[in-house]
Amino acid sequence: MNRYQLLAADIEASIRAGVLQPGDRLPSVRQACASRQVSPSTVFQAYYLLEARGLIRARERSGYFVAHGGGMAPPEPEALSRPDSASVQVDVTERVFSVLQASLQQGTVPLGSAFPGPQWFALPKLAQALAASARQATAQRTALDDLTPGHSGLRRQIARRYLADGMPLAMDDLVITNGALEALNLCLAAVTRPGGAVVVESPCFYGALQALERLGLQAIEVPTHPRDGVDLQALEAALLQHRPQAVWLMTSFQNPLGSLMPPARKQALVELVTRLQVPLIEDDVYGELYFAPHRPLPAKAFDREGWVLHCSSFSKCLAPGWRIGWTAAGRFTQAVARQKLTTSIATNGPAQAALAQYLEGVGYDKHLRHLRHALAVQRDRMAEAIARHFPPGTRATRPEGGYFLWLELPTGCDAWALYQRALQHGISLAPGPLFSPSPAFAHCLRLNYGIAWDAATEAALAQLGRWCCDMVAGSQDAT
Amino acid sequence: MNRYQLLAADIEASIRAGVLQPGDRLPSVRQACASRQVSPSTVFQAYYLLEARGLIRARERSGYFVAHGGGMAPPEPEALSRPDSASVQVDVTERVFSVLQASLQQGTVPLGSAFPGPQWFALPKLAQALAASARQATAQRTALDDLTPGHSGLRRQIARRYLADGMPLAMDDLVITNGALEALNLCLAAVTRPGGAVVVESPCFYGALQALERLGLQAIEVPTHPRDGVDLQALEAALLQHRPQAVWLMTSFQNPLGSLMPPARKQALVELVTRLQVPLIEDDVYGELYFAPHRPLPAKAFDREGWVLHCSSFSKCLAPGWRIGWTAAGRFTQAVARQKLTTSIATNGPAQAALAQYLEGVGYDKHLRHLRHALAVQRDRMAEAIARHFPPGTRATRPEGGYFLWLELPTGCDAWALYQRALQHGISLAPGPLFSPSPAFAHCLRLNYGIAWDAATEAALAQLGRWCCDMVAGSQDAT
Repeated sequence: MNRYQLLAADIEASIRAGVLQPGDRLPSVRQACASRQVSPSTVFQAYYLLEARGLIRARERSGYFVAHGGGMAPPEPEALSRPDSASVQVDVTERVFSVLQASLQQGTVPLGSAFPGPQWFALPKLAQALAASARQATAQRTALDDLTPGHSGLRRQIARRYLADGMPLAMDDLVITNGALEALNLCLAAVTRPGGAVVVESPCFYGALQALERLGLQAIEVPTHPRDGVDLQALEAALLQHRPQAVWLMTSFQNPLGSLMPPARKQALVELVTRLQVPLIEDDVYGELYFAPHRPLPAKAFDREGWVLHCSSFSKCLAPGWRIGWTAAGRFTQAVARQKLTTSIATNGPAQAALAQYLEGVGYDKHLRHLRHALAVQRDRMAEAIARHFPPGTRATRPEGGYFLWLELPTGCDAWALYQRALQHGISLAPGPLFSPSPAFAHCLRLNYGIAWDAATEAALAQLGRWCCDMVAGSQDAT
Repeated sequence: MNRYQLLAADIEASIRAGVLQPGDRLPSVRQACASRQVSPSTVFQAYYLLEARGLIRARERSGYFVAHGGGMAPPEPEALSRPDSASVQVDVTERVFSVLQASLQQGTVPLGSAFPGPQWFALPKLAQALAASARQATAQRTALDDLTPGHSGLRRQIARRYLADGMPLAMDDLVITNGALEALNLCLAAVTRPGGAVVVESPCFYGALQALERLGLQAIEVPTHPRDGVDLQALEAALLQHRPQAVWLMTSFQNPLGSLMPPARKQALVELVTRLQVPLIEDDVYGELYFAPHRPLPAKAFDREGWVLHCSSFSKCLAPGWRIGWTAAGRFTQAVARQKLTTSIATNGPAQAALAQYLEGVGYDKHLRHLRHALAVQRDRMAEAIARHFPPGTRATRPEGGYFLWLELPTGCDAWALYQRALQHGISLAPGPLFSPSPAFAHCLRLNYGIAWDAATEAALAQLGRWCCDMVAGSQDAT
């Protein structure tokens, strides 16, 4: 063993012995150099080794922390999904509503929720900004200045943030909407006609399916990898075969898989849709919730000819109830703005002004760093709980951002039956069949690790695991 | 002459002599009794007589005021519109956008605007409510409590106001939306399918036409009277002939006519759609802006079986930029709520909470009384200016609420040409052709008397009148 391996082994022993516990911070590189009398590169190498083993995690600008689970996590699902290559009718709305409504009941452990817990949000700071900006609006007495395309200060702040992340965007490319879901729906309406077809991931966000259903559009599901996202060869084949009116994808931290398309694949994706002249609706609502040091660039960053309709919002990162989102819709910007004007005219003005003011400060970045760290820690906690409680053969994604785990349960487990049973015991979850128009993913489920993590959450996960074990045992008895 | 005629003649002489000027308040009944040594009934009879002659106007709880124009007003249009009875394709969106965008230019006299001037709105009070409610939200730290159907406190306040006006409504009947336009669009989407047809007034609100166009629906225009609204016999014939999927009407202070259906006609309307089982979408956004002592009941008040989808908002009365509206959609409430959930999830939470708080006080009613009075005064001013400046043969509606005058210009006048010319000189107006899918109303226009009334507005009206006189003269020269 050389020096860095020795150092790594020492630290691993401390973790295994419980001296260092999950969430504890490791000494800084400088401290470790001083106390161990080694060079910084030795410490870095040791820490990289421990990180590669899943024992510790780096947090941007905060140093290294002991990982939850001490590397204990269920194996990842590896297989591409294999949807039918047909174009199918969508009829999921009833199913989705029954699940969503059940999940809203008071006292339910909200593992099926689509939002992080309210404890993460910067509501006090936002309230201050709202109060301050309300007082200023009084002085100006303007009433209609924030009409579509939206408050110019807010559009400037959003464009500024994209620029800082490496994606230049003009203010005039942006249309402010009533949350990302409105942005997505307006984009979809702008580029489709009833009776057409739209490509989606398999599995995909149920909101996309509801939008297709509402607009009388068929769905074409394409194979999607749990880590890398949509399969580009299959996508190209689908585009050539079905000539769809649009493609709707989440390229970063996809809901429900958490998959992240690498930059080269995003670039290839944009080249493909540009070559075939198919509008790409990119839902990037989780893009800011990355655990790596840098924000993953959206596909929009590679869009030279305006075929990407990029959509996002503050609803997942800052304030769900504010309903402020936006789209940068490329060559379709004017069409989308008109959809907005004819459906809801504009987005709430005071909220736009207050957000613009809030974004001028450094509070949002600070808040995001905190949120990302908290979510990364809880991802590990949940992975550990699943490894501990769920039956062997359970697989779970290991997303590098967002707040969803996607589970593949072993043979004998039925996610819908599990959902029903859990609900009777005050636990919500999102069963796999919500995420496809086809009868697929019956053995899958989506869990939200961004909710409050307390004894009830721990107990709910243990209980879900026991029920799954029961189902596996029952099916083995039957054979 | 008996006593009350003598008293009326004296007051008329004072007005004609300029002793009493437009906007001046008349002595209260009690004061007049004392100073003239007559009975209250004599004073009332005198005032009624003067009011009938258009010389004075009653304002709710404020007494009588000298009318602007001293009774000088253009004659009212009397004829029912005579649209084709066919069902027609709608293609107005480009036309509407070109007019709306032109009207937004800085420095334009906004006679074509769809909103009252910002000077009327209670923005300071609203800002206070927003700041106060933001501070309270901080304490609660809730993020998702105002999801569709909407903030319960706000729904309670809205229901309470309807109850006070004589229309009981349950809180659960209400869905909060992103302004009335979203409510109307959601209602329309909930009860129609592409390819169907919808009955509208002739002329009708262009937003309705844009909604039909967006959803691929045909329009059936029915004859509409400038004072009493839609012709019920013609409506019944259209319903039987075309079997439309919905009827979309403004029953009180219709845009653009300002027509007000009397209560008995509203009741007959509801009985008709109930008998034929056709959903009635009622746009009541101007309902609160009445000049008579009491709020006109909407058609919804007569709805026993839930066929009326009633829509309204605060955008015309309180805060256009807030985008808070609602619908009471009867038997379609759940369908509309689902449309809302799948298109924009919910409406801005802080704004809902702040409005709920604001409505708990008496400020809104005080504000509305002030706004109604101001609008009534400006209606008279504009009528007077039109009588003074426009060519003989010009007719203008005399609405009992809202803030629009509808003008029928004499032969030789073309509203579209007038619009183009006016725009070059920094004056906007809404030309008649915006308000119909057919080539109709080429000699009509809509003017907004709710804008700031200053020298520029006066001058703009005089200029419009001169151009119309020129057009009439030009056409007479040509013949």
